[in-house]
Amino acid sequence: MSDSEIQAGVEGVNLEDGEKKLSKKELNKLARQQKKAEKKHQGADTKTEESTEEEDISKNKYGTYGLIRSTERKELEFVNVGTLNSSLDGKEVWIRGRLHTSRVQGKTGFIVVRQRIFTIQGVLFVGAEVSKQMLKFVGNISKESIIDIFGVLHKVDQEIVSCTQREVELHIKQIFVVSAAEPRLPLQIEDAARRANEDANLATVNLDTRLDNRILDLRTQTSQAIFKIQAGICEIFRNALSKRGFTEIQTPKIIPSPSEGGANVFEVSYFKGSAYLAQSPQLYKQMAIAADFDRVFTIGAVFRAEDSNTHRHMTEFVGLDLEMAFNFHYHEVVDTIGVLLIEIFKHLQANYQHEIEAGDEDDLSTTNEKALGKLVREKYKTDFYILDKYPLSVRPFYTMPNAEDGRWSNSYDMFMRGEEILSGAQRIHDPVMLTERAKHHNIDLEKIRAYIDSFRYGCPPHAGGGIGLERVAMLFLGLSNIRLCSLFPRDPRRITP
Amino acid sequence: MSDSEIQAGVEGVNLEDGEKKLSKKELNKLARQQKKAEKKHQGADTKTEESTEEEDISKNKYGTYGLIRSTERKELEFVNVGTLNSSLDGKEVWIRGRLHTSRVQGKTGFIVVRQRIFTIQGVLFVGAEVSKQMLKFVGNISKESIIDIFGVLHKVDQEIVSCTQREVELHIKQIFVVSAAEPRLPLQIEDAARRANEDANLATVNLDTRLDNRILDLRTQTSQAIFKIQAGICEIFRNALSKRGFTEIQTPKIIPSPSEGGANVFEVSYFKGSAYLAQSPQLYKQMAIAADFDRVFTIGAVFRAEDSNTHRHMTEFVGLDLEMAFNFHYHEVVDTIGVLLIEIFKHLQANYQHEIEAGDEDDLSTTNEKALGKLVREKYKTDFYILDKYPLSVRPFYTMPNAEDGRWSNSYDMFMRGEEILSGAQRIHDPVMLTERAKHHNIDLEKIRAYIDSFRYGCPPHAGGGIGLERVAMLFLGLSNIRLCSLFPRDPRRITP
Repeated sequence: MSDSEIQAGVEGVNLEDGEKKLSKKELNKLARQQKKAEKKHQGADTKTEESTEEEDISKNKYGTYGLIRSTERKELEFVNVGTLNSSLDGKEVWIRGRLHTSRVQGKTGFIVVRQRIFTIQGVLFVGAEVSKQMLKFVGNISKESIIDIFGVLHKVDQEIVSCTQREVELHIKQIFVVSAAEPRLPLQIEDAARRANEDANLATVNLDTRLDNRILDLRTQTSQAIFKIQAGICEIFRNALSKRGFTEIQTPKIIPSPSEGGANVFEVSYFKGSAYLAQSPQLYKQMAIAADFDRVFTIGAVFRAEDSNTHRHMTEFVGLDLEMAFNFHYHEVVDTIGVLLIEIFKHLQANYQHEIEAGDEDDLSTTNEKALGKLVREKYKTDFYILDKYPLSVRPFYTMPNAEDGRWSNSYDMFMRGEEILSGAQRIHDPVMLTERAKHHNIDLEKIRAYIDSFRYGCPPHAGGGIGLERVAMLFLGLSNIRLCSLFPRDPRRITP
Repeated sequence: MSDSEIQAGVEGVNLEDGEKKLSKKELNKLARQQKKAEKKHQGADTKTEESTEEEDISKNKYGTYGLIRSTERKELEFVNVGTLNSSLDGKEVWIRGRLHTSRVQGKTGFIVVRQRIFTIQGVLFVGAEVSKQMLKFVGNISKESIIDIFGVLHKVDQEIVSCTQREVELHIKQIFVVSAAEPRLPLQIEDAARRANEDANLATVNLDTRLDNRILDLRTQTSQAIFKIQAGICEIFRNALSKRGFTEIQTPKIIPSPSEGGANVFEVSYFKGSAYLAQSPQLYKQMAIAADFDRVFTIGAVFRAEDSNTHRHMTEFVGLDLEMAFNFHYHEVVDTIGVLLIEIFKHLQANYQHEIEAGDEDDLSTTNEKALGKLVREKYKTDFYILDKYPLSVRPFYTMPNAEDGRWSNSYDMFMRGEEILSGAQRIHDPVMLTERAKHHNIDLEKIRAYIDSFRYGCPPHAGGGIGLERVAMLFLGLSNIRLCSLFPRDPRRITP
């Protein structure tokens, strides 16, 4: 590494006083870069693809940049499409986005430019600023290419119903291709975005084709909304728990034995031996409680080797888990989790209205809504309810049996719109009782020895629960298939892309 | 499920209006519970283990609760040890904590009660409130048991140097065992907490013993501090990126082929076939950029099947990764990451002073500090610097070659105190160039087809980087072994507990 490659002066900050020091050399360099950028600002360095006999009045106002390899640090200020409205009438702006659709007829061109869930119309008229050659170039840009456009925003008289930005359109003066899409797309974004029940005359795309071409499918407004909402769920889950004194932990995914029963576990070749993939963070979050972490949560991948090919099974998903020491009664924990879930749903309703509109398919509302959910809603006027004290026999071995009646257990499920979203329980924190229950479930004690041992040196009573990120998003948005809620879903038949 | 098990009324909240409705039945139930709790408040339901001939004046003021199985919802207000100081002189409080140490001599007992990183002294004097029997009971409580103590806080004349709370001690009137530890501990918390170089006359615990008994080892102040800081690193990383428009994503850990080169990858039995564990989220975070996510980050497990048994290798660790579309130059991304890392370190310095003091071992400061780090510090007065433009040959196949000199690449590493903490680069976003580079690296194109294909339909130029959570924590705290920074570390020889 030569001296000149050390950028310390530019980026360097002394942690103690936070002072930023630029050397003379670096100041000079910055000045040179700026000069260069200004000089090239008007696209003088771009390649114009058309060469014609008559003079091109739009020369250097359109073309392709070529592959951007960071040879210069151009400073263009791009605006976000979502912020454009009629108050900006007359303003000149640069936009970088995807060519969503284009239509060139005679001396006029209409394009729609897309930025995630937002779209705006751009127009070109052959005349004083736009040459015939330029319009032809625009007509040849393939859909889904990334383009830079520059022009003037015009308030329109009639709402543009085909775009999210309905009040304005951009009169284009410059257009450059940043990254070209191949001309033939394996699926059309508009088709993938269309719901199956929307209009029988229009094409839709089946799920396998969508997942095979997931990169394109993820560009639809629905997909963009689904993953924005998932990020929101994780954020609220963490914030709500952090402010209640929970500590975030990371639990191992590689485990020595199929600790939660032998079925449905993936085996890993581990050097000369074998290991397994954790089916949940259950045992480890409890061990964190035994290790004095008091209240913990963790968000991470969990793995289920279940050969189920249904709309709601995946072999890998994201678990949001929490575990909490309580003082005397596990209902202390039930209260905390109940408030947490309500906080999540309220926050989503309040802050993700755009995304809910783009994503909500409500497929479940009539056909799948469970009878009990309906009943509870009618009787108690609520979408959210909790069932308490499940039969011991249907819960995992580590569930605390009910002290008054051993047929029951200190366990609970929480429901949203009649669908279970969270399962939890008080856990056994006594090694003797835990050993008995494990034996009763025919679990090889040797394989869970470290887990059982962790309760030998004092452990507070504790309870917890977990939700599946994709499942909650699916139910919240009423989607028909959980795979739509995983960026790159895995099931028994699919591990690609 | 019988009707009475539905708690909907208690927990139920209608999402639309947030109104809480309690039925009469439930109100009655609550009232009964409260009455019951009040009645039992003074420990009348606890078992006193001692039975003696002379009357015990402390009867019902000490004993064990028995296994807490949520039979009643007692309401005691416990205080946090960390908040106790001389301003509370004379106040009566309940504390739940661990019995850290105890010493009973004659008619006096001294105990230290620990709550995570905080400790307080408790004292008992046989007299009007404490019986001989009670003191004997206290002397028999095993260390690390969880206990409830009730008493009066007294301001002390001389600082208690052996506790974190030096201004006050608790004069104990009641003491109950919540969860008893086995009398023989596999290691002593004080010994595990002691640093190897501290005092040659006192016992320390070697790393394997500590990791074998990780539940106890995690209770030391050092461990508590390390994981508090790690939670902090994750939180700041996310907050700093979220406010800059990044979206959190979750990438698959199960992948179809060893996509980043065949070495060091774990194989998974996947139904009738095979799959692999992702060595990083690299390809998937880039695919998210091609899918219009614009700026993404992800925190999750990464796996390396490297048979290295050193102080800084693990087979599973937590990656904090980001990827970002840029406009014209990857230095736009370098600037963002630089600011991010500085923000993380400043935030830790400012908000985790307690934890840094408990965790900082500074083992690296003299012996391991790299020569370059020292040089940069002397010349530029900074702990943090960036090296730019590494030789292409030492970087992965997807790294963008430098346009001006193909021997170099648009890649960078970032350093803290002379140690590399982040590695990143501009990535190739052109499928043709990417194919060429993959061929050059002898990578089977068929195995990365989905990845290469994702750049065929337009992709913005992008760059990113990643840090290892445990590594950053180790370097920040100057710890001697990365395993101390993993709750349950995995290496070629250890996958348990």
